[in-house]
Amino acid sequence: MEYDLIIHNGLIITGNEEFDIIENGIICIKNTIIQKIGQKKDNIKLPYSAQVIDANQGLIIPGLVNTHTHLPMSLFRGLADDLPLMTWLNKYIFPAEASQINPESVNQGSILSCAELLLSGTTTCCDGYFYENYVAEAVYSTGLRAVLGQGIIDFPAPGVPDPEKNISYALAFIEKWQKRYNRIKASVFCHSPYTCSKNTLIKAKEMANQFGVLFQIHTAETKTEHDTILSEHNLSPVKYLHKLGLLDSNTLLVHCVWTDKEDIQIIADTHAKISTAVESNMKLASGIAPVPDFLKNGIVTGVGTDSCASNNDLDMFSEMDTLGKIHKLAGSDPVLMDAKLIFKMATLGGAEAIGLKDEIGSLESGKKADIVIIDMNKPHLVPVYDPVSHIIYNVKGSDVNNVIIDGKIIVKNRQVQTIDIKKFYTAPYFSR
Amino acid sequence: MEYDLIIHNGLIITGNEEFDIIENGIICIKNTIIQKIGQKKDNIKLPYSAQVIDANQGLIIPGLVNTHTHLPMSLFRGLADDLPLMTWLNKYIFPAEASQINPESVNQGSILSCAELLLSGTTTCCDGYFYENYVAEAVYSTGLRAVLGQGIIDFPAPGVPDPEKNISYALAFIEKWQKRYNRIKASVFCHSPYTCSKNTLIKAKEMANQFGVLFQIHTAETKTEHDTILSEHNLSPVKYLHKLGLLDSNTLLVHCVWTDKEDIQIIADTHAKISTAVESNMKLASGIAPVPDFLKNGIVTGVGTDSCASNNDLDMFSEMDTLGKIHKLAGSDPVLMDAKLIFKMATLGGAEAIGLKDEIGSLESGKKADIVIIDMNKPHLVPVYDPVSHIIYNVKGSDVNNVIIDGKIIVKNRQVQTIDIKKFYTAPYFSR
Repeated sequence: MEYDLIIHNGLIITGNEEFDIIENGIICIKNTIIQKIGQKKDNIKLPYSAQVIDANQGLIIPGLVNTHTHLPMSLFRGLADDLPLMTWLNKYIFPAEASQINPESVNQGSILSCAELLLSGTTTCCDGYFYENYVAEAVYSTGLRAVLGQGIIDFPAPGVPDPEKNISYALAFIEKWQKRYNRIKASVFCHSPYTCSKNTLIKAKEMANQFGVLFQIHTAETKTEHDTILSEHNLSPVKYLHKLGLLDSNTLLVHCVWTDKEDIQIIADTHAKISTAVESNMKLASGIAPVPDFLKNGIVTGVGTDSCASNNDLDMFSEMDTLGKIHKLAGSDPVLMDAKLIFKMATLGGAEAIGLKDEIGSLESGKKADIVIIDMNKPHLVPVYDPVSHIIYNVKGSDVNNVIIDGKIIVKNRQVQTIDIKKFYTAPYFSR
Repeated sequence: MEYDLIIHNGLIITGNEEFDIIENGIICIKNTIIQKIGQKKDNIKLPYSAQVIDANQGLIIPGLVNTHTHLPMSLFRGLADDLPLMTWLNKYIFPAEASQINPESVNQGSILSCAELLLSGTTTCCDGYFYENYVAEAVYSTGLRAVLGQGIIDFPAPGVPDPEKNISYALAFIEKWQKRYNRIKASVFCHSPYTCSKNTLIKAKEMANQFGVLFQIHTAETKTEHDTILSEHNLSPVKYLHKLGLLDSNTLLVHCVWTDKEDIQIIADTHAKISTAVESNMKLASGIAPVPDFLKNGIVTGVGTDSCASNNDLDMFSEMDTLGKIHKLAGSDPVLMDAKLIFKMATLGGAEAIGLKDEIGSLESGKKADIVIIDMNKPHLVPVYDPVSHIIYNVKGSDVNNVIIDGKIIVKNRQVQTIDIKKFYTAPYFSR
């Protein structure tokens, strides 16, 4: 067989269920799919392939899956740091969204975010925002894989001045994108239980069910939200959504910081998924989600960065590092949340959380060739005792050298092949 | 006047007391010293200089000051992650120190650490370890600035098999290094109140006083340490050290996680300094130091990474980012520990904490030319609203393009000029 692409001469961390690690690994790719993966015998020649990447004894890992983004918000990176939540939202973010968010800026902000994601090893993201059609076009053009949802909120929003039409806009988005390209999956992004009425929440979930797509919703992010829902409905946010029938295996609950034992049991029983976003929760002082308890209860939990307005970056390596450290600290136990567990959350776990487990998240024969190659020839990566621990605690986004999505080389020697990055350093949307 | 080096075409964040920020800045350097700093008028030609760096509209900041390292421990980076503290120490770190620490490995580990420090924008570190003579030689050879102390501990240690001689070894170190080079300052590194007897602690501090050098000591890092000292001496670690007369303006207390209001008042009253090391405290699940309270009480507090065995890197940008986020979270207040405050801690505050405030820590005429230039042409650094906030929440160590120490270009376009980095990728000390 002749291949489209062969990657060799690196240590493969497959991230499969058995967590196989392959020394002197080789991956053969054809028609976007991993056809073969294994160890290369020294005396065997490489099979014929149109393209070959020598990993130079680096690490070869599955592309990272970022389960929570708002891509166009790179426009607001660092716009308003170190402020009280309501000042941040009302004085900066909402006015900026009203004045600066339009199809063109959404397109540009999304492409900028994709450049950042790609250069730090993310190959798939799960996104929700407004003007999501323009996000989708931007993402598709960059070569990234994504699950995308047009925002539903019961307030006037960018591109949706009349909230009465929020469901119909989201419906149009799904109809347009659901079967257009394999790399782009449509979903429903319902903002939250405190910004959507009961009626909107139910309608949005019915629509997601109708199309069999992912239903994303911010849930229990802050104490204020928790207390508001409790006082209005006499239920925690999770219990309230459960009562409305919104929790099932196609539901992704984002944040879940303010969840108690009963909430966690409900999430586990309904097979809903969670996306945690630790750096955003820290920076906005929202709290610490009980992630070790999610995992103990078998809840599939992915890792998200949240938007650049609250993080302020989209770097999954930094997110993984902080995720491990914060839960060791919170649980007073350095054994909690070990490197392998976090690696799984950011790859196969994330893929499962957003409904793509059969396609991506691990390096296995038959799966999509979404692959990241890490350059290990850096002073901060020497020596190496445990490559998995290195990925969580040492590797930085900037150590990513090559990124392959759908078998196509998207980042080559740290150059994004699909984006003209230089224009962002002078473009009018990006005040300096 | 003719200069040795001119840096221009960047935004200067001086980090001086007034926190001046200079657009289109220029810095003129001669004889290791900043002679002139200010704004460059467009129609004025650059003065004559032997070397010129065009900062390419990047950020020009004071070199970062890392107030707590154990440089040779890069040898143990990732050796033993996700383990209980005592397993980590007794099963991995102590045996590794016993078998692997020798003059040659200390030299190599220190140079590797210096490469990492330099490439992530640190120009000065405050270090303590054993075989510190070899650390000093290594550090000096790389061009880094440092305050160094030979370790004092009442157990057999690498190079000091007989603990009875720990003070005399430390004395010999001071005598050898105290006036040898301007860039290397000798100090006393006394391990901790739980590993040194009362007698050793007092003798070590007397020696520091005799030479007028910094006295570094790990203090109140873990609850176990706190409870041990409390049960043995009926005092908290800080109160115990205070009772022994160890706290004054030349004392640097490292960690201070387990400190209460009274401890903090004592530290403030005695003008002792603190080095916080948040990522290490998180990873080892030690706790959160009450840094906002230190600052409220006027205690000079610097930022340290701790060693690669517990962090696992020496990256001050990551440390600053986490420092801000953890205290917002711990205090449930996103306004706490703003970017400017953290920037000051990592520069002028750190310099003051280790006794170098008059020489370094800010970009001012008359100070040493220790300067870092950040490349802002990266997707994750676009757009820019507030450059100081960008430095804390967005800039990564890998965005550092040039590093100048004592007016000498040590890192040029991300290449360390003083270290043959490639040898670390094959050297025998660095198992892969």
